[in-house]
Amino acid sequence: MGVSQAVSVNQFDAVDMDKFFNPSSVVIIGASNAKFNLGAMICKTLRDSVNYPGKVYVVNRSGEDVHGAKGFKALKDIQDEVDLAVIITPASVIPGLIRQCGEQGIRNIIIESAGFSEKGEEGKKLQNEIDETACFYQIRIIGPNCLGIVDVHRRFCCMYGSEKIVLPLIQQPGSVSYILQSGGMAEMVAERLTENMMGVNKMVCIGNKSDVDEADLIDYFSMDNTEVIGIYLENVKHGRKLMTSVKQTSKPVLVYKSGKSEAGSAAAMSHTAGMAQNDAVFDGACKQAGMIRLQSPEELHSLPKMFTKMPLLSGNRIAIFTTSGAFGSIGADLLANTDLVMAEFSKETKSKLRQIPGVFNANNPVDIGPAPPEIYLEIYNILITSGEVDGLLHIVGIWQDFVKDVMNALVNFCRRQNKPAALYAYNSMSKLMSARLERELPLFNTAEEAVRALEVSYQQYKYLCQKEEPLWKK
Amino acid sequence: MGVSQAVSVNQFDAVDMDKFFNPSSVVIIGASNAKFNLGAMICKTLRDSVNYPGKVYVVNRSGEDVHGAKGFKALKDIQDEVDLAVIITPASVIPGLIRQCGEQGIRNIIIESAGFSEKGEEGKKLQNEIDETACFYQIRIIGPNCLGIVDVHRRFCCMYGSEKIVLPLIQQPGSVSYILQSGGMAEMVAERLTENMMGVNKMVCIGNKSDVDEADLIDYFSMDNTEVIGIYLENVKHGRKLMTSVKQTSKPVLVYKSGKSEAGSAAAMSHTAGMAQNDAVFDGACKQAGMIRLQSPEELHSLPKMFTKMPLLSGNRIAIFTTSGAFGSIGADLLANTDLVMAEFSKETKSKLRQIPGVFNANNPVDIGPAPPEIYLEIYNILITSGEVDGLLHIVGIWQDFVKDVMNALVNFCRRQNKPAALYAYNSMSKLMSARLERELPLFNTAEEAVRALEVSYQQYKYLCQKEEPLWKK
Repeated sequence: MGVSQAVSVNQFDAVDMDKFFNPSSVVIIGASNAKFNLGAMICKTLRDSVNYPGKVYVVNRSGEDVHGAKGFKALKDIQDEVDLAVIITPASVIPGLIRQCGEQGIRNIIIESAGFSEKGEEGKKLQNEIDETACFYQIRIIGPNCLGIVDVHRRFCCMYGSEKIVLPLIQQPGSVSYILQSGGMAEMVAERLTENMMGVNKMVCIGNKSDVDEADLIDYFSMDNTEVIGIYLENVKHGRKLMTSVKQTSKPVLVYKSGKSEAGSAAAMSHTAGMAQNDAVFDGACKQAGMIRLQSPEELHSLPKMFTKMPLLSGNRIAIFTTSGAFGSIGADLLANTDLVMAEFSKETKSKLRQIPGVFNANNPVDIGPAPPEIYLEIYNILITSGEVDGLLHIVGIWQDFVKDVMNALVNFCRRQNKPAALYAYNSMSKLMSARLERELPLFNTAEEAVRALEVSYQQYKYLCQKEEPLWKK
Repeated sequence: MGVSQAVSVNQFDAVDMDKFFNPSSVVIIGASNAKFNLGAMICKTLRDSVNYPGKVYVVNRSGEDVHGAKGFKALKDIQDEVDLAVIITPASVIPGLIRQCGEQGIRNIIIESAGFSEKGEEGKKLQNEIDETACFYQIRIIGPNCLGIVDVHRRFCCMYGSEKIVLPLIQQPGSVSYILQSGGMAEMVAERLTENMMGVNKMVCIGNKSDVDEADLIDYFSMDNTEVIGIYLENVKHGRKLMTSVKQTSKPVLVYKSGKSEAGSAAAMSHTAGMAQNDAVFDGACKQAGMIRLQSPEELHSLPKMFTKMPLLSGNRIAIFTTSGAFGSIGADLLANTDLVMAEFSKETKSKLRQIPGVFNANNPVDIGPAPPEIYLEIYNILITSGEVDGLLHIVGIWQDFVKDVMNALVNFCRRQNKPAALYAYNSMSKLMSARLERELPLFNTAEEAVRALEVSYQQYKYLCQKEEPLWKK
């Protein structure tokens, strides 16, 4: 399109962008008391689930109130200043509504309705009308064809049909912000991130992204209290713009892109109306700009903990320490597929390890049998302070409760020593998950995931080295 | 080695092999009441955890009873016939013990002690002594350096330190049998298979496999009530023998092999003393013999349910049916990496789908919004009876409880129609796991796993076609 790009980042700064996430007042256009009304669900969520502190208005045919939000027949009847309009009406009436918003002085609009570019020629014409009007009034738009936004810390949410998702998110405010070109993905990420003992900061579903796109949001998240940025994309419209935004942030940007294959790309087309690009081109752009490309959608929720709970991996020498000979061998195999290497131990380190009772193997991987907690702690110390190891891959069986205690000690030790460990326990998922949540242990679900965590940590370290400092260090 | 191979399958038939799993009487040599005695743990497990119906004897220096098992100072003092000896003593005394077993008429021995080929020259000499004695007396040996055996249906277990693992296994007798060259792997598989609503039939840790190896056990499991055979290997000693055994069974043989990389192979060497082979050679052998090579150790417990709960996939045309446009695109991407293809729908099928309210897309992937149960059932019916689809990839959000009901209906429908579906729900792991366990739904943990399930199901179908019928169909 390009029309809306005329409104550049300069004209529309972070303060204005902030109104999408932290509006003092919002109007839900299309919310009514009809059965299954989606706008009404938003009103209910704002009042009952997130306890939104701002003012909520609704516009509908009869001007009726909805879940405590004051109702009006037309936008112009609202006397107050309104920061944000959320539109969830049939597509055909939306161009007129955008004009009314412009006249009312509203500069931030989220269009959740579908029926635009993803629906053929008729939809594209509607989309063009909206773009032109928005450009004239200098309005910024998120959507159309999207699920909306949630800002967990500031208790704003305009996602429909998501009360069950939003409630656990609100209870656990966190530091990961997501930009998602899909509502289903929001559902997965929200539920599974919570199970990874992490919380969401902000989450935006960008849908067809006729205006505000992933680049604008990376700019915004690079300046707020976000620690990790997670992105799900089906297409990229403005590649250069995206690369510039990524280059300018020091925060890890994790991106999963679908539509790699022809069939996947066709499916994405009918979902969010974007042309998928040549996958190799996107891959090259990620590397050049410093964006971590994810291998599965699961990594959107499994990997952030490696960045928030552990220091970055600043070298490629990994020691494996395990209570299973098999997983020692499997871990070494997995590392062989990355640019990480098995650390080589000096004679001194080997001799220290050999003096420890119960150590089967004083080489890397270090393999122990049933042993008391002191042995674990001693081995952590030898490996991490050896000067021969940049990071630890720790694969254990939780065969006694104390194993959780020593892992807690390891996490603290890693932070002090500024070297990361990736943890995996080959127990039942329920045992692993309860250790993770109850003891705040950054445990990964599989050995593969733990190795991936080390890999992306090192990748982010190298990206930071390659980025020009002045751009992001202010 | 080769020495022990002199005892061929002909001389030692399935009835004799059965004594490893279902002995009428067993002697635990080395069990005593000393603190941390491993043999004592076995006696306790036999009595308290598995309620073993046979007779248990122990041999130790003082001849004392252990956890209710009658004690003797020497093997020759036991007057009864003994089916199986489990040895868990220092390695150095074992050659002498093997001789005593031979004289006593015991033909089945499990050596759990370590300290043989995996421990350099001294260990190798001991190993040779044992091999020669065993050959002379026609004794078959499992181990050394192994965790032992469990037979869930017949309530026998000689694994030490594994009470916590064995108890849940015994409560859920199943149809998957495992051959594992690692004790740690036994721990993982046992805990995680139970979470996959599946039970273990038999599990054997083969350790250094000086005699009985994976091929012998495949032969045995191909004749018992096993439905799926899972294998973890660190090395292969007799490649031809393994290939012959695999070719002769119609049951799915799933194998994960570590030691693919140089570092992983070195680690495996010090663990179970085997030379890892060129990985490409092993890969070729799998394809030629008809063995499904796993991509991660997790697949040992995640994939069996696809074989026991669903019919085989007998063609490569897959329909995706999803409640998330994103996962439609992701699923199509994942299929593009396999030899499965996206089914093409005829005009007739598309027009049927278009008549269903709430269907966003009448192409493949079929993508629906919030819809009542009837819509799901109707779409299942259209897709599976179309004649255009061999299997279904069903990716849903469990946004209402009825979604579990319709998935239950789908599972039954698939069985009647003899076409499989692979199910994935992009909800929290705890929601997914509870749906799996409470509703007996074969749900996979990730979209990748579900696609893998279709892939290996089709692989097994093709293997069966390629195997010469007379060999396995009797």
